[in-house]
Amino acid sequence: MSQSDNPFLALTAPGLAGLCPYVPGKPIGELERELGIRDSIKLASNENPLGPSPLVAEAIAAALSELGRYPDGGGFALRAALAEHHGVDPQAITLGNGSNDCLDLIARTFLHPGFESLFSAHAFAVYPIATQAVGATARVAPARDYGHDLEAMAGLVNERTRVVWIANPNNPTGTWLGADALHAFIAALPSSCVVVVDEAYIDYVAESSFSDASRWLDEFPNLIVTRTFSKAHGLAALRVGYALSDPAIAELLNRVRQPFNVNSLAQVAALASLADREHIARHVELNRAGLRQLTEGCERLGLGVIPSVANFVTVDLGRAAGPINDALLRQGCIVRPVANYGMPNHLRITVGLEGENARLLAALERVIAA
Amino acid sequence: MSQSDNPFLALTAPGLAGLCPYVPGKPIGELERELGIRDSIKLASNENPLGPSPLVAEAIAAALSELGRYPDGGGFALRAALAEHHGVDPQAITLGNGSNDCLDLIARTFLHPGFESLFSAHAFAVYPIATQAVGATARVAPARDYGHDLEAMAGLVNERTRVVWIANPNNPTGTWLGADALHAFIAALPSSCVVVVDEAYIDYVAESSFSDASRWLDEFPNLIVTRTFSKAHGLAALRVGYALSDPAIAELLNRVRQPFNVNSLAQVAALASLADREHIARHVELNRAGLRQLTEGCERLGLGVIPSVANFVTVDLGRAAGPINDALLRQGCIVRPVANYGMPNHLRITVGLEGENARLLAALERVIAA
Repeated sequence: MSQSDNPFLALTAPGLAGLCPYVPGKPIGELERELGIRDSIKLASNENPLGPSPLVAEAIAAALSELGRYPDGGGFALRAALAEHHGVDPQAITLGNGSNDCLDLIARTFLHPGFESLFSAHAFAVYPIATQAVGATARVAPARDYGHDLEAMAGLVNERTRVVWIANPNNPTGTWLGADALHAFIAALPSSCVVVVDEAYIDYVAESSFSDASRWLDEFPNLIVTRTFSKAHGLAALRVGYALSDPAIAELLNRVRQPFNVNSLAQVAALASLADREHIARHVELNRAGLRQLTEGCERLGLGVIPSVANFVTVDLGRAAGPINDALLRQGCIVRPVANYGMPNHLRITVGLEGENARLLAALERVIAA
Repeated sequence: MSQSDNPFLALTAPGLAGLCPYVPGKPIGELERELGIRDSIKLASNENPLGPSPLVAEAIAAALSELGRYPDGGGFALRAALAEHHGVDPQAITLGNGSNDCLDLIARTFLHPGFESLFSAHAFAVYPIATQAVGATARVAPARDYGHDLEAMAGLVNERTRVVWIANPNNPTGTWLGADALHAFIAALPSSCVVVVDEAYIDYVAESSFSDASRWLDEFPNLIVTRTFSKAHGLAALRVGYALSDPAIAELLNRVRQPFNVNSLAQVAALASLADREHIARHVELNRAGLRQLTEGCERLGLGVIPSVANFVTVDLGRAAGPINDALLRQGCIVRPVANYGMPNHLRITVGLEGENARLLAALERVIAA
């Protein structure tokens, strides 16, 4: 059955007919079975190759005796720790089942048919999906050098715009916006729309002209900043993200939020991870070296590399990426095609351990020479 | 700030203004701090007092090395096991972050402004919340003896009805519908609405005239059956539920589903729990004895008890339940007021361990005599 043949489509809410869900990367095990390969490396999902802090396993072990009990639906301890970490009121925090959940809550709260959300070309795939799922209209601004063109975006804001999504740094391009430009863009937005600054990759950024947008929360009541434990914290398996906002916006997001959206082990794991800043620092340092290794390695192969400040590089192969990706898979290297981001000639490569990066570069060299 | 003063309300989707989120029971720790009590017992959330199978902790321990990796978004192994368990195609299964998530997915898929969902008075609180969150209209049929009145429900079905919700057994009343009546009701529904049979408490039911509605999936393409691992499986902390339906309906629900809605530890825990039917059987037997203990104990105190087939009893105090509940809290007994279900004189008491049930009954005796 193709999606458009579904006999129940006629009964569905606006948006469902045009909704193509996010396609995650395949788990290693499944892919190895399909391809008949072993010992593959996965540099496909911008995961932390070190995994989480060792404190996380301890926290989970201590929580196993309470698996029969519902989670704390209010996330009291985790929100208190995050509030202290960010210097905000706990009422400013909305917990999500991954930051994907926060993005979805924002769409459900502020978007509906007849209204618009705005984002950049080559920005994170969940923005159009969350918009479509509620039957709202997506407006896509052209990119500049694969990054956000804030002038182009400002030109598309109108009285029907309810949500503006900005990923900083951006996935899947690794590009970023400086503090001054982003601040000026937000300041010029009408109060009739909320602006979401998605900072999933912020921990990797060292650039001095970059600013954490959460510093501007007091200044801009229509600003929402989203964060995740899936990247630098190495907790992708457990699904914890959060939104920082004016408490009035948080109160609305929490109306839509499912009462037990973040499970108990996810809550204790995130809490433990917050307490181990050294582990994050080690990972960030490893990432910096690996980012250089991959960037220089790809450039040595004559490939165009979009300058990245995140934990991945996106590489222009100068030809259709699909066959190259297939050949890499047969070499046991799993990376991410980004044709669905309007980039059919690019591949996104996550920074792994030094040996994994080296293995990927060697495989890529063989494959493009073949 | 009261909910109606929220300055961002004017920007929100239809439904938000009238949306009052589910209020979960407080975690024991928080409540003990507030009341200055210790050693309290929680018989408030229909949790399994034995917790999950010991196999669950083993499965979680084995999965800790992969916390840095995203979950399997397709839930391949868990869906395969569930498919075998129910004798259905894996494509018939939609995984949820608890069955609450499945209920929410159903509302988002089939309901929107101008359309209606239908449920019984005193039925599960998530049905009106999920309906309101998408701006649809809730129609509430009067109950009969606190249970579903299927004739009254049938009389409220019209051309705008898109979802009919039936909890069988029902929470918070513990009432249930026999197979013949429910089958006839579903058979008479127009094909323009889907019917959800929420079987969260099915594992506790031994009555011979009860039927698992999933046996009728082939017969009724518009039928959705929801299940949870939060009750008999003792995994409330981890949030795993699922919907069984025609694959065409599952395809739609999966469009709306967040790609990683069930986290990795939740998936392995559910899989392990499915393999330990003996643990469930032990719990069900314990529950049967405890249900009798609580029912007889409450009747001995002269209280009206709604006959229950689930893991709780709902008791008519013959006067406002709020003060009784407060007094029970001060005795360290946490149960659930159900005034929000239109039952201000009732309390819902979860079946606990034998000693917990005895302690609750003794506290209740003191409190109502005071």
